[in-house]
Amino acid sequence: MPTTIKERVVIASASGAWLTTEDGHRLLDLPAGLWYANIGHGRERIAQAAAKQMTTLETYHLFGIHANRPAIDLAERLRGLVPVADASFILTSGGSDSVEVACKLARRYWQQVGRTRKTVVLSRTGGYHGLHGFGTSIAGLDFNRAGYGTESLIPETARIPLADLAATRTLIERIGPGNVAALVAEPVVGTGGVHPPPDGYLTGLQALCQEFDILLVADEVITGFGRTGEWFASHRWGIEPDLITMAKGITSGYAPLGAVAVSGRVSEPFMSGDDAPIFRQGITYSGHATACAVAMENLDVLEEEDLVARVRALEPVLATAFGSLAESPLVHEVRAIGLMAGVQLLPDVPADEVIRGCRERGVLTRLLAGNALHVCPPFVITPDEIRFAADVIAAALDAVAERTAA
Amino acid sequence: MPTTIKERVVIASASGAWLTTEDGHRLLDLPAGLWYANIGHGRERIAQAAAKQMTTLETYHLFGIHANRPAIDLAERLRGLVPVADASFILTSGGSDSVEVACKLARRYWQQVGRTRKTVVLSRTGGYHGLHGFGTSIAGLDFNRAGYGTESLIPETARIPLADLAATRTLIERIGPGNVAALVAEPVVGTGGVHPPPDGYLTGLQALCQEFDILLVADEVITGFGRTGEWFASHRWGIEPDLITMAKGITSGYAPLGAVAVSGRVSEPFMSGDDAPIFRQGITYSGHATACAVAMENLDVLEEEDLVARVRALEPVLATAFGSLAESPLVHEVRAIGLMAGVQLLPDVPADEVIRGCRERGVLTRLLAGNALHVCPPFVITPDEIRFAADVIAAALDAVAERTAA
Repeated sequence: MPTTIKERVVIASASGAWLTTEDGHRLLDLPAGLWYANIGHGRERIAQAAAKQMTTLETYHLFGIHANRPAIDLAERLRGLVPVADASFILTSGGSDSVEVACKLARRYWQQVGRTRKTVVLSRTGGYHGLHGFGTSIAGLDFNRAGYGTESLIPETARIPLADLAATRTLIERIGPGNVAALVAEPVVGTGGVHPPPDGYLTGLQALCQEFDILLVADEVITGFGRTGEWFASHRWGIEPDLITMAKGITSGYAPLGAVAVSGRVSEPFMSGDDAPIFRQGITYSGHATACAVAMENLDVLEEEDLVARVRALEPVLATAFGSLAESPLVHEVRAIGLMAGVQLLPDVPADEVIRGCRERGVLTRLLAGNALHVCPPFVITPDEIRFAADVIAAALDAVAERTAA
Repeated sequence: MPTTIKERVVIASASGAWLTTEDGHRLLDLPAGLWYANIGHGRERIAQAAAKQMTTLETYHLFGIHANRPAIDLAERLRGLVPVADASFILTSGGSDSVEVACKLARRYWQQVGRTRKTVVLSRTGGYHGLHGFGTSIAGLDFNRAGYGTESLIPETARIPLADLAATRTLIERIGPGNVAALVAEPVVGTGGVHPPPDGYLTGLQALCQEFDILLVADEVITGFGRTGEWFASHRWGIEPDLITMAKGITSGYAPLGAVAVSGRVSEPFMSGDDAPIFRQGITYSGHATACAVAMENLDVLEEEDLVARVRALEPVLATAFGSLAESPLVHEVRAIGLMAGVQLLPDVPADEVIRGCRERGVLTRLLAGNALHVCPPFVITPDEIRFAADVIAAALDAVAERTAA
């Protein structure tokens, strides 16, 4: 239900890092869709893999004893990629789904092991965890939690600061560690404006969780599958979460798919012995065969083209090109990490006008929380294209600065 | 995280109403996957439509001013199919998603129009509305709500009886109509065991909702797109809901997709004027272009092959064939409507053994709540195949009856 259809931009086709609108404009896709187009658009081989699977078996569900091979194979392959001990996987249709699974499982786990007061789920201020019922309840962006008549749809939730370990400890002690089930954190806060973690923050958070026996959920929906130059941001910052939520880059957007990596510790109560209880979770398209076949092909592309290493190589190019935008009088600061950045404008800068100016100059970007421009291109972007995008933003900012000064 | 992998049945391929397992067994797909395979499996034209769209533009998201043509076209086409006044659409990736959207929007609507105490969401005992945060909270199957340490994840929820209008009125009066936001109901309760509505029940429910100014949400995830012999069950039983949730048959399972039809009354506060508030909802793959292209092709198949009329023609065949199973001493009753049925076994009948017996005889079925066998075949099933399936269940029941008598 878009309330803004006046300026509608309808994308008709796409290839690599470039989009073409219905009226024929070419635009560099700076947000990679919604952070998802890691391998870039228009990959014929993904379409062929999808068509082949769809003709053979579009899907068969994973409820009960039923299964399909692409889902089994994908779970096995993911197991080798994640920094989660003895991981098993629950497959979903996207990031919002994955958050529901992780939060529900965290609460279910503590009930199952007899620590029944542990129900509160913590999340970082600025965090975005989708917009289903649980994700809305733990939204760190207040506007996503507001308007429903209560502070949070699910009451047993609370927000920790964006990056303050001492204050987080105080909060946990106030709530009582015996009441806290899990802490959900994006390693790099994304929709909140691209905030990389300060040095030592994530390992410190993990240490706090271990001290207070709180499950650590890394929400890697954005950072997974190479965005920060490692397969997962948890690798880069040296943490080993109890659960990892993922989506987006798992298919690069070619099919709706997500997953939750579940550590052996958390799955054990539901897997040990014939009388273990069922964790009653599952959506129709959990492990959709065609979506899983797409994911497998996407992982092939990431590996064959060495695209995660490419992110590492492009990281300084992006940091330099976009970092220079901080010189604009309209820019508060630029935060860059891996192949993503937030160009935070001053609060009173009309971001819509800047974004429109970029579009007129051939670059698509969009607004993140805190009046920041969204930078997160497909991994196939070239150094020249990165510099072009930064130059376009600079020109659009100059035009706005001139107009507002006039 | 399937806890039962001992007997795993891996489906390798499928065509029409038939599945083939990895070890070469052919099985009639009596549950149509999970109620989704309306047009049947293995449709080459769907795969080609998907590949074509994926190569052109796998997707582009619908946040803000962005859009893609298949999503716009699908919403327009759905508008002509639903019994919802002045409908607009929010697209999702499946039925669970659609429930989250509908419940959140119902609460958001009342806040927006100033009836801020209207927060409670009612649902039918036996109802299944997915397993995300909100869907879990309104689960009418208690085992799906249990195990999280509170009666319901979202407290402002309550269950009405399966089909008792007088008791529902009493409950609403006790809660206070001024506190009730919405009532969510499957027209035919599905996972709860296939319970068709008694005569006058759905229109009576609608009248109650109108009397007390409660939004009526028809959960047509299962019944939508022809399952009861009309495009929507709401058509068949003559109701006009404020919101309809849908999924499954919208793509017949070829791609993860769902939708919510929103009546003009409910969308109006968010659409009128430039300063209307945003209903902050949206998932990455809301309106996934490839999934929408698949849906369009699926609707073409439904229309060109006149499959909704075929359901009407097959309804008495299925009712007769499966109705005869009620003669078995192991069967409590058989409930059939449209092209779906629940064969409810007596409580102490080992359903797993019956289901295994069916599988050995070439028919796949599964268990629904209340020890009922799941019958809901693809619309392309033939009358002979329907009778074959019923005969197989009869034989499997006989074998169990013989063994347990011995």
